[in-house]
Amino acid sequence: MTPKFYSKENLHFLLHEVFNVEELCKREEFKEHSAAGFDMIIEAADSLSENHLRPILVEMDRNPPRLENGTIKVHPDMEGLMKKFGEDGWISMSAPHRFGGQQVPFTILQASAFIMAAANYSTMAFPFLTNGAAHLIESYGTEELKEAFIPKMYAGQWQGTMALTEPDAGSSLSDLTSSAKASGNGHYLVKGQKVFISCGDHDACENIVHLMLARIEGAPAGTKGISLFVVPKHRMENGKLVSNDVSTAGVFHKMGYHGAPIAHLIMGEKNDCHAYLIGEPHKGLSYMFQMMNEARIGVGCQATSIASAAYYNALEYTKVRTQGRKVGEKNPVKPQIPIINHADVKRLLLFQKAVVEGSLSLVLEASQYFDKWRTSAGEEKEKNFLLLELLTPVVKSYPAEMSILSTSAGLQCFGGYGYTKEFLAELFFRETRIHAIHEGTTAIHGMDLLGRKVMMQGGKAMMLLMQEVMEQIEGAKKYEALKGYAAVLEQKLINLQEVTMHLISVAQTQGPETYLSDGTLYLELFGILVIGWQWLKQGIKTEELKATGNKNYSAEFLQSKLYALQYFFEYEVPKTEGLITRLKSSNHVTVMAKGEEIL
Amino acid sequence: MTPKFYSKENLHFLLHEVFNVEELCKREEFKEHSAAGFDMIIEAADSLSENHLRPILVEMDRNPPRLENGTIKVHPDMEGLMKKFGEDGWISMSAPHRFGGQQVPFTILQASAFIMAAANYSTMAFPFLTNGAAHLIESYGTEELKEAFIPKMYAGQWQGTMALTEPDAGSSLSDLTSSAKASGNGHYLVKGQKVFISCGDHDACENIVHLMLARIEGAPAGTKGISLFVVPKHRMENGKLVSNDVSTAGVFHKMGYHGAPIAHLIMGEKNDCHAYLIGEPHKGLSYMFQMMNEARIGVGCQATSIASAAYYNALEYTKVRTQGRKVGEKNPVKPQIPIINHADVKRLLLFQKAVVEGSLSLVLEASQYFDKWRTSAGEEKEKNFLLLELLTPVVKSYPAEMSILSTSAGLQCFGGYGYTKEFLAELFFRETRIHAIHEGTTAIHGMDLLGRKVMMQGGKAMMLLMQEVMEQIEGAKKYEALKGYAAVLEQKLINLQEVTMHLISVAQTQGPETYLSDGTLYLELFGILVIGWQWLKQGIKTEELKATGNKNYSAEFLQSKLYALQYFFEYEVPKTEGLITRLKSSNHVTVMAKGEEIL
Repeated sequence: MTPKFYSKENLHFLLHEVFNVEELCKREEFKEHSAAGFDMIIEAADSLSENHLRPILVEMDRNPPRLENGTIKVHPDMEGLMKKFGEDGWISMSAPHRFGGQQVPFTILQASAFIMAAANYSTMAFPFLTNGAAHLIESYGTEELKEAFIPKMYAGQWQGTMALTEPDAGSSLSDLTSSAKASGNGHYLVKGQKVFISCGDHDACENIVHLMLARIEGAPAGTKGISLFVVPKHRMENGKLVSNDVSTAGVFHKMGYHGAPIAHLIMGEKNDCHAYLIGEPHKGLSYMFQMMNEARIGVGCQATSIASAAYYNALEYTKVRTQGRKVGEKNPVKPQIPIINHADVKRLLLFQKAVVEGSLSLVLEASQYFDKWRTSAGEEKEKNFLLLELLTPVVKSYPAEMSILSTSAGLQCFGGYGYTKEFLAELFFRETRIHAIHEGTTAIHGMDLLGRKVMMQGGKAMMLLMQEVMEQIEGAKKYEALKGYAAVLEQKLINLQEVTMHLISVAQTQGPETYLSDGTLYLELFGILVIGWQWLKQGIKTEELKATGNKNYSAEFLQSKLYALQYFFEYEVPKTEGLITRLKSSNHVTVMAKGEEIL
Repeated sequence: MTPKFYSKENLHFLLHEVFNVEELCKREEFKEHSAAGFDMIIEAADSLSENHLRPILVEMDRNPPRLENGTIKVHPDMEGLMKKFGEDGWISMSAPHRFGGQQVPFTILQASAFIMAAANYSTMAFPFLTNGAAHLIESYGTEELKEAFIPKMYAGQWQGTMALTEPDAGSSLSDLTSSAKASGNGHYLVKGQKVFISCGDHDACENIVHLMLARIEGAPAGTKGISLFVVPKHRMENGKLVSNDVSTAGVFHKMGYHGAPIAHLIMGEKNDCHAYLIGEPHKGLSYMFQMMNEARIGVGCQATSIASAAYYNALEYTKVRTQGRKVGEKNPVKPQIPIINHADVKRLLLFQKAVVEGSLSLVLEASQYFDKWRTSAGEEKEKNFLLLELLTPVVKSYPAEMSILSTSAGLQCFGGYGYTKEFLAELFFRETRIHAIHEGTTAIHGMDLLGRKVMMQGGKAMMLLMQEVMEQIEGAKKYEALKGYAAVLEQKLINLQEVTMHLISVAQTQGPETYLSDGTLYLELFGILVIGWQWLKQGIKTEELKATGNKNYSAEFLQSKLYALQYFFEYEVPKTEGLITRLKSSNHVTVMAKGEEIL
C-alpha cells in the first residue's frame, strides 16, 4: 500500500464543513455540479495519485531530465500520463463547456492539484501549467488562436508554459529584452532567451506552447512595453508541425523537483520564430498576471502538498520507530516506546500539522474568492477581487516559506535516517525549497503586499479582510476552548494596524525604500495572523461538529484538529511579538548599510 | 582563484582582539607557542584548504562513496590527504609532546578546523575524528594501547572513529546491545552492529580504529553497564595486519556531506572480533563523553564553517549580479544595479554574517574554556569546566540550527540559480542539514541544557555565565553605539531567569516531562542571548579599535562588524519575545496530546 501523503478526512472537512463548497453550485457557472460530484473528482484525483503518480516519485528523483540531441528526455511514464491527464479531463476541468471543459470551480481544481502534488509534485507541473496557459489564451486570445491551440492543450497533446524569465530579468521583469517584430503576415518574429522555463521542453508531448513575454520593436521601456505572445515549439504549416526556431540550450540541474524539466530556451536564432500576439500590444504583463496569480495560488498549494507528504511520512514513522522511554522513567529494562510519545517529537509533528492544515485552508479560501470573483458582479465581484488580490502574496509565500521549515521538521523526526536516501524525508526537503523562489521570491511578495495591496483603494482590501477575520473572532468567542485565542487574534489585529500605520509614517518621512525594507517581515507577520484566522475558522467548525455528534468525522480527528489549533496559537502566534518589535524599530540597518560596506 | 569561503580578517580579529589567544602562551602547556606561531598555523590551514581541500569539493559531492567488495571507496585524493594531515601535524597538533604532538591549544585547533571545513567539510571529518579518537586512547588507555595505536593514528595511517550508534539505539544510548566477552587472553570478543559511523570504513587508510561502546556480559542495564573498547578493523598479529572480523554491511546514501563515508558496520560475525578495554569496565560512557564533548564543539564549528562558505558565496554573487533598480527609481532605462543594494538582499546577507561571526565567536569562547580547564587547577579549573559544560549544548546547537536557515538565506540570494547545481548554494544547504542531527539532536541538547546543565551544582554554572555576560554588558555601556543594546541584553537576562524560575516551578508541580517538553525552545532562547553576548563582546573590541586608529583592520571591516551587530539586536534578539511568551504559557499541548491522537 502507498504510504499516506495527505488526509482525505481533513480535505473533506475543509471543503464541506469549513468552506461549504457545494454553495458554489448555486451559481450559474457551476450549476451542473454537486457535493457528490466534487467528491467524485477528489476520489479520482486520489486514485490517479496513488496508482500512477506516487509510484514514480523516487524514480523521477533518481533520474533527472537530460538533454539529448536538442530535446529534453523526461521519465518515460510522462507521455502516457499527459495523455491520461488530457483524456480524463484534468487539464480542462476548470475550462468552460465551450472549450470542452467541465466548468469545475477553481477550488476543486486546487483541491485535486493538492492531492496530486502531495503524491508527486513534479508530475503536476505538466498538466497545471498547460491548464494555466490554455486558460490565458481562452481569456485574451483571438478565436483563431483558441481554435489552433486550446483543444490540443486540453487533450494533453501539447504542453503549455509561462515564458517570462530571462538571464538578466528574473525578479525585474521590466528589464526583459526578448524582441518581437511584425512580419507583415499576421504574425510576429521573436528573438530572445528564456531561462527557468518549467516544462519548457520535453519528449512527453508532441509540441510545447510558450506564453511568452517580449517587446515589440519601438515599444516603451519598462513594464509598459511588454507584449504577450503564443510561441509554439512547432508551428502548423499545411497541416504539419514544422520547427518554429525554438531551441533548447540547456536543462537546469536542480537540487530537487527532478521530475519536471526546467529549460533554457533560445527563440529566433534563425529569425524564423513565429509568434502570435495575444490581446493588445504592450499590455502583455497585465494579461500574464492572470496566469501568474493563478500560479501563485498554485505554488502555495503545492508547497502545502509537499509539506503534507513530509508530515504523513514522518507521522507514520514516529508511530512505529521505538527509541528511549518517557522522561522520568528510570528503569532501563522497560521496553522502548514509539518516539511519537516524546513531547519534542509531538511538537515537531504538531508544527507540521498546523502548517499543512492552516495553509491548505488558506489555499481553499483564496480559491473560493477566485471562484466567487469570476462568477459575480458589482459589489460582490469587487469584494472578492480585493480579498484575492490582498491574499495572493500571503497564500503564495506563507506555505512556501513554512514548507521549508516544516519539511525540515519532518526530516528531524527520522534522526540520522532522515538525512539518508533510505527515506523520503530528504527528498521533500530538497523538493520544496523552490517554492520561495519561483513565481516571485518572498521578498517580491513582501513588497507587493506592503507597497501595493495594503494601500489598494485607500486600504479597502485591508478593511474587508479585517471584517472577515472579525467575523470568525466573534464566532470563536462562543466556545470556551477558543475564546482565549480569539481574544489574542483580536489584539494582534490591532497590533497589525498599528504596525501598518507606523510604516506609513515611515514612508512619509523616510521614503519608499525604508518603508519597504522589511516587507518580508511584514509579510511574515501578516501570514501568521491570516493562518490564525484560518485556524479559528476550523476551530469553530470543529466545535460545532463536536456539539452535534456528527458521524462523518472521528472523535480523534476533531481532537487532533484542536491540538493543532492550540499548537498554532501557543507556538506560532507568539512569533508575531518579535516581528512587531522589529517592524516598529527606528533602526533601518539594511537601508543604512551600503552594499560595499558589507564584508 | 578559489572564491572566498571565510574571512581571514575576522578570524584574526576574534583570535587576537576578542580572545587574546596569545594569553594562553603564558600557561606551562602552551609556553612554546606565540601569537606569530598561531598565525603560521592558521596560514598553513588556509593554504592547505585553498590548494587541496576546496578544489575537490564539487567532485566529492558528485561522486559519493560507494561500497565495493566489502570496502568503501572514497575520493582518490583522500589517501594522499590523510598522509599529508598526518605528516604536517594536523591530526596530532593538540596532542602532548610525548605523543609526538605540538601541544597546540584546542582553540587554535578549532580555528584551523573552521577554515578547513569551510573549504570542504567532508575532508575534515577524517583527520579530526582521528584526533578525537587518539586523544581518548591517550587519556584513558593503557600504555600498550597507546603505543600500538596512537602513532599510526597521528601519522594519518590509521583512521579513528566513534562507534556509538546502533540501529535501535541512537538518541537512547542506554539501549545499546553490542556485547563484549572476556576471552581470557587479555582482550575481549565483541559482537554487534553500529550505524552512522562517520569514516567507519574507507580505502584512504590502511586501518580503521573504532572507539566502540559495548556491554560486557553480565553488565547492568542502562548507561551504567556500558564499556569502551578499541576495536580495529585489522589487528596486528606477528607484525602483520590481519582481519579483525569487522565487516562493512553498507554505506549510507545521504543528502549531502558526500565526501565522508558513513558506514553500517558488523562486528564479530565470526566471533573473532578482538576488542581492547579502555579504562574500567562499565565506565565507558563517561570516557566517551570526552570525545563527544570535543566533537560537539566541533559540530558547532563545522556548521559555522558551512554557513561561512555559503555566506561568502552569496556575498560575492550579490556584488556582481545586477537586477532591478532602487525602490522609487521609476526610469526603466537606467542601468540595473547589483542586487546587494536591495534592502532585503542586505537583510539576507547581514543575517548570515551575524550568524557566522556570532557562532564562530562562541566556538572560540568555548574552546578557550576548554583550554583553560585543561591547564588549570582549583577554582579556575572548576569555573572553566562549568562554563564549558553549560555552553556545550549551545555551541553545538545554535550554529547547527541557524546554519540551516543561514545557508537557506544564502541560496535565496541567488534566486532561481540558487536552486541549481550551477552554483554551490544548494550544496551548502544540503551539507549542513546533518548538524542538527549528529552528536545529539537539538532536542537532546535542549534537555541536556534545561534538565542537567542549568541545575548543575545548584545553578552555579548559570551564575558564572551571568557574571561573564554582565561584564560585557557593563563594558558595552561605555559606548554610545552599544549602550542601548547592552540594556536590552541586561533586560533579557532577567527575563531568562524568570523563565527558568517559572520552569522550575513547573517541574515541581507537573513533573519532569512537562518541565522538559519545551527544552528545544529554551535552548533557542538561551542561544540567542549567548550570541548577543558574543556580539557585545565583539562590539566593544570594534569600538576600541575604532578609537585607537589601529592599522590591522580596515575601516570597512569595523563598520561592517557594527552593522552585523545592529542586525543581530534588531532582528534576532526580538525573537526571544515570542519564545519567552511560549515558555511561560500554562498550556502544554505537546504533553497533553497523546501520540495516537495526532492524525
